[in-house]
Amino acid sequence: MMIWFNGTLHDESEVHIDPRDRGLLLGDGLFETMLARFGNIAFLDDHTVRLAAGANILGIPFPESLPHIIVACEMLLEANGLIDAPRVAIRITLTRGPGPRGLLLPDNPRPSLMITAAESPTPASSQSAILTTPRRNALSPTSRLKALPYLDNLIARQEAHARGADEALMLDTSGHLACASVANIFLWEGERLVTPAEECGILPGVTRAAILALAERQKINVSEDMILPERLARCDGAFLTNSLVGIMPLSRIDDRELPPHRLTARLKAAYDLLLDADINIDDSDI
Amino acid sequence: MMIWFNGTLHDESEVHIDPRDRGLLLGDGLFETMLARFGNIAFLDDHTVRLAAGANILGIPFPESLPHIIVACEMLLEANGLIDAPRVAIRITLTRGPGPRGLLLPDNPRPSLMITAAESPTPASSQSAILTTPRRNALSPTSRLKALPYLDNLIARQEAHARGADEALMLDTSGHLACASVANIFLWEGERLVTPAEECGILPGVTRAAILALAERQKINVSEDMILPERLARCDGAFLTNSLVGIMPLSRIDDRELPPHRLTARLKAAYDLLLDADINIDDSDI
Repeated sequence: MMIWFNGTLHDESEVHIDPRDRGLLLGDGLFETMLARFGNIAFLDDHTVRLAAGANILGIPFPESLPHIIVACEMLLEANGLIDAPRVAIRITLTRGPGPRGLLLPDNPRPSLMITAAESPTPASSQSAILTTPRRNALSPTSRLKALPYLDNLIARQEAHARGADEALMLDTSGHLACASVANIFLWEGERLVTPAEECGILPGVTRAAILALAERQKINVSEDMILPERLARCDGAFLTNSLVGIMPLSRIDDRELPPHRLTARLKAAYDLLLDADINIDDSDI
Repeated sequence: MMIWFNGTLHDESEVHIDPRDRGLLLGDGLFETMLARFGNIAFLDDHTVRLAAGANILGIPFPESLPHIIVACEMLLEANGLIDAPRVAIRITLTRGPGPRGLLLPDNPRPSLMITAAESPTPASSQSAILTTPRRNALSPTSRLKALPYLDNLIARQEAHARGADEALMLDTSGHLACASVANIFLWEGERLVTPAEECGILPGVTRAAILALAERQKINVSEDMILPERLARCDGAFLTNSLVGIMPLSRIDDRELPPHRLTARLKAAYDLLLDADINIDDSDI
């Protein structure tokens, strides 16, 4: 497998991360995960802009121009023979690079930017989820960044798997519903759609934003809200969103079966059209 | 510089971290920082036992026996000519190693264990600290582990530096005092000593435990408590603790000067004796 690493393509075996890299030692970095379909990367601009904005917040100098990253992604797909693949996960990882011992910032930061690509399996048609123990920190600036630290989410996911569920739902530290371990969540209350507000320790997902816009365009009554977990137990349907699965219906939350919701199917169809439109727009640019 | 990496000593330039290492990609790992003085590592057993306990909680197979790690630390000091150095910081970093894409655990984990050593400057005689914005997550299992994710603490520290202070104090998500960015905190209220309880999103430090035991032995009235920040503004003295600085008196919290506290000096003297005793015990073992 070929990897884009600090400006050029390398064979994976030749990519050597510096043992002093702060991404490794302190979780001092960010990432993005994107879906490429037949060589077209969905919401590429949104992802790279979010990455650059996060880097700005953390004070990590952005090592490449955004257009350069876009070209790098395309070269990477090409080099790995993935241009024609129907589903490829692309991950961009940005770290502050090597630094001195401890938390002290390096005087002359040499940030590290790595891009990897791998075929991504077709998602299941639905998933089950349970409410897990670890809480998202609503009072942490990093909760709203796609930062490297994913250990809480990982523990939540392990807890879900141990209890027989596919995904882990997490509350935030104030007791409101936040998200799943790798996804945002939307609930149906009748035909009203609701998703946890940004202040609930969530990462504001690129797909979440697309779904919010789509729902409004479809005249669906949609809102961002502080959601107590009782509403999970009463909702009429639910789905998760992230860049790789798009819309993932939840067929069960805790011990409660959830029937498919008519409007989830409609939103999913609209989202698929949006992805196709994105492909067409990209094609017309070339 | 020589580094211990997965079972042997290597020159730093030859240590290559796998780009798929989950420590780098997800913060999926742990570390310990220890102080070596003239080749003797303070509280080595406590640190390695804590590391092994954390690995057990995260389900990371521990790649080496604890006695082997102790030998590795000694070989590392020797190889770097640091056996006679008065202050050396040793860091052990354990990650889950490379894994598949996403949060999925590797079927056959190949955890990675790295040990580095570097001379550590003599600490200042006191520090200033201010209360910062990021909160420690009292409802996260990882808050109580010395896990790789340090981004919140790093942001807190940057905020403190930007406002002219040495260290950042952090509350937990329920509004109680937790810790500093790389240290535990103790407050004097008259001649009573108090430190945030373990449920306040703190890492239960090795030095913190030693100070709690020392204070009891010295008949100091000491307790672990839920501490509201108002008590910071009223306390009669304060100090930070970690493995590298031992006891670090705080000379200022926010805008308030703190006079030196008689009992801080006494505890510091007792702690220094304890470190010396630790050295003597180690010597007699050899």
